[in-house]
Amino acid sequence: MVRYLFVTFWLLMSTCILAQHNDDDALFIKTIHDHSLTSGKAYDWLYHLSETIGGRLAGTAAAAEAVSYTQSVMEGMDADQVYLQPCTVKEWHRNGSATVDIVNDNGKISLTALALGNSVGTSPTGVTADVVEVKSLDEVHELGRAGIEGKIVFYNRPMDPTQLRTFNAYGGAVDQRVWGASTAAQYGGVAAVVRSMTLSIDDIPHTGTLAYKQDYDKVPGIAISTMDADMLSDKLSHGSVELYLHTACAPGAEKQSYNVIGEIKGSTYPDEVILVGGHLDSWDVGGGAHDDGAGCVHSLQVLQTLTDLKYQPQRTIRCVMFMNEENGLAGAKAYAKASDAAGEYHLAAIESDAGGFVPRGFSFDADTSVLKKHYKHVSSWLPLLESYGLQFTTGGSGADINPLKSQKGILVGLRPDSQRYFDYHHTSIDRITAVHKRELELGAAAMTSLVYLFDKYGLSK
Amino acid sequence: MVRYLFVTFWLLMSTCILAQHNDDDALFIKTIHDHSLTSGKAYDWLYHLSETIGGRLAGTAAAAEAVSYTQSVMEGMDADQVYLQPCTVKEWHRNGSATVDIVNDNGKISLTALALGNSVGTSPTGVTADVVEVKSLDEVHELGRAGIEGKIVFYNRPMDPTQLRTFNAYGGAVDQRVWGASTAAQYGGVAAVVRSMTLSIDDIPHTGTLAYKQDYDKVPGIAISTMDADMLSDKLSHGSVELYLHTACAPGAEKQSYNVIGEIKGSTYPDEVILVGGHLDSWDVGGGAHDDGAGCVHSLQVLQTLTDLKYQPQRTIRCVMFMNEENGLAGAKAYAKASDAAGEYHLAAIESDAGGFVPRGFSFDADTSVLKKHYKHVSSWLPLLESYGLQFTTGGSGADINPLKSQKGILVGLRPDSQRYFDYHHTSIDRITAVHKRELELGAAAMTSLVYLFDKYGLSK
Repeated sequence: MVRYLFVTFWLLMSTCILAQHNDDDALFIKTIHDHSLTSGKAYDWLYHLSETIGGRLAGTAAAAEAVSYTQSVMEGMDADQVYLQPCTVKEWHRNGSATVDIVNDNGKISLTALALGNSVGTSPTGVTADVVEVKSLDEVHELGRAGIEGKIVFYNRPMDPTQLRTFNAYGGAVDQRVWGASTAAQYGGVAAVVRSMTLSIDDIPHTGTLAYKQDYDKVPGIAISTMDADMLSDKLSHGSVELYLHTACAPGAEKQSYNVIGEIKGSTYPDEVILVGGHLDSWDVGGGAHDDGAGCVHSLQVLQTLTDLKYQPQRTIRCVMFMNEENGLAGAKAYAKASDAAGEYHLAAIESDAGGFVPRGFSFDADTSVLKKHYKHVSSWLPLLESYGLQFTTGGSGADINPLKSQKGILVGLRPDSQRYFDYHHTSIDRITAVHKRELELGAAAMTSLVYLFDKYGLSK
Repeated sequence: MVRYLFVTFWLLMSTCILAQHNDDDALFIKTIHDHSLTSGKAYDWLYHLSETIGGRLAGTAAAAEAVSYTQSVMEGMDADQVYLQPCTVKEWHRNGSATVDIVNDNGKISLTALALGNSVGTSPTGVTADVVEVKSLDEVHELGRAGIEGKIVFYNRPMDPTQLRTFNAYGGAVDQRVWGASTAAQYGGVAAVVRSMTLSIDDIPHTGTLAYKQDYDKVPGIAISTMDADMLSDKLSHGSVELYLHTACAPGAEKQSYNVIGEIKGSTYPDEVILVGGHLDSWDVGGGAHDDGAGCVHSLQVLQTLTDLKYQPQRTIRCVMFMNEENGLAGAKAYAKASDAAGEYHLAAIESDAGGFVPRGFSFDADTSVLKKHYKHVSSWLPLLESYGLQFTTGGSGADINPLKSQKGILVGLRPDSQRYFDYHHTSIDRITAVHKRELELGAAAMTSLVYLFDKYGLSK
């Protein structure tokens, strides 16, 4: 009775607000949400991915297990086809923990540290050198060889707390992690120690990939926790500090891996593909629950909900678990290459790679002319989604779907609330315990609703 | 530099969007948010309230300590006056834990239970009786004396998971907790056992107040966890179940307590009051962090931010820590009585009593004619707040400010995201660990921004 009244009330509301759309849309979007909140399996799948399988760095046995598992999940749905798409990934081995010790006359102080992904290790005996603290890559260029040679460069510019969307704060700081080691090496620096990419002041170190420039030596990059970064900075304000570093990480061999793909063939426009996806690999520490197990199970849930509801799409709906986003993007490259070679057209591609938190909306991206042509059309759907707390914006979508932009469709990023994301990102605590079941389910429902609208209305003519 | 660029960008944006408001507004609201996120003290205050002091049931020493503490916090600000407003509260004593045992031939199974607030205890030897499960108060009326007499009534209608705003799900289920015991007693039932008010399936029991109807016996009311409610229901589907209940809770004496009030006098319209508030009391279990320590520190932060920023209000801004919201509303009643007696006019009253989660907007309430007159005016401010993820709606505000509606001003409830709230509400786990620092700070910034707009623009003429 309560349910009946609610639906009635909701229909009345939608009649007033949504004159431009069919009430059927409002009702189906409500049905999608009800299904996700009452019959969704996203949380159970995520438990398996993040806890039973755990961290899933590309090339590892865990990543292979995640491929098999999500393949079997898709095969359990009423999809038209499920298949694996090969890609070649390059392994990276952490080989144990990282040591960052402050060495002084009274002994040592061990910092909480984690090697950066794709970093080389130190020599077996480690590295001991004086530290120079900087706040930017520019500062290293300014200090030059005179200030950097033989030193460990400590990058300590915090993420900007006044950025409301924490991804912007991350974007404003992560150059230190990505390019810090190579920039140090450019002037004879022997290693980079980087403040963890988080707004939280805590003792959790955050890994994540670095990149080496071709022309310079590969020197080690290691993250330390924000608490230890503050402590080290404080010590440096009182005088020079010597650090001892040790890591044993090393590149590995090339390995065959896979994207996992399941799809429902479109009844009317089978050649117009609507993609939903996340990346199946994660860092080796923690369980990759928010990054990006959440995006994977969001995408799986889209397929599950639509098949459970016996929805017959006009367009082809394809769910993709991308491999190797974290340290190589081999899956994304293989997918785009195969798609382009087959002459495919992705009318829309929606990526979830910003966590399993409560959904706040979508970010739309495309070639300028494409976005100009279609964004108004897409925005006309917003009244159907606003009552679910969703907003539309333009901006980036996701690393795995980005190569599909050349197909001149619309790319979309799910935008969950970002406040907690960088508490967990690339850490040992990115576990199922950090994911809220309903928030996860609402994210899947938001994506499913948008897929439904893309399927029903396509893009503007 | 990054900060400077951001502000510039933001001003450019606001120039485009907010033709109807001064850019000064956009800039000041940005300054408010920056202050809250970089210099806010809300989290530290909340740590003290929820962890150092802990649960603060009205009439207890902890509640008295919370009065002194928040008074001293206000006195540390540059407010014009800080004072205590007396109110008389009625104590209630839990007197230890609650026992709910399934009694069967093979022994007993102990359920996870918590007495409901204001409940009477069982007799010292406890209550043993057969259980009858119902899904509603109506079902008890239908079963009548024939079905209820001598029995323990087990209320087991879950909160509706398809409600997006969990407060609506709570509102649709909480009649069982409030009136379940009395409705059972009306037909000779000997006690009520109530499924905990949460959407989470877990082993955490939730307390909260019940109310007794005058004409019937007072029988005990006890909450059990949702997991145990499901288990008990399952057992009942296989046959009859006998329960043994024991609680020692009891009403206490009347005690003097206080609302804590701090204010900044308005320069131009000192007689127009803008109130911000939360309730200082909480249940005895847990730390009352989200309910409602968060609302208290949100409100304190409004005062702190405005005084730190040397803001000189036109209208009087008053911060109130209400006493005894949970089981009596003595503080709210005393406040409204004194305010009415003094002929005060609350132009606006904003209550935060829905947790310290990321703010999603505000709910506006008033007498129909007042709302009709002013809501459009107030809504014209929304473009200034939308970029902070805030939306406006009409609906309820808060229990403490509700009596002020007769003064014909606008009542407002802060609406934080509600998905996680009922995981913690009235439980032992409503602790600082469940509160996210930035989310809390953003809530305070949202309230401060709205206070600023009420102060600057008042209501429509």
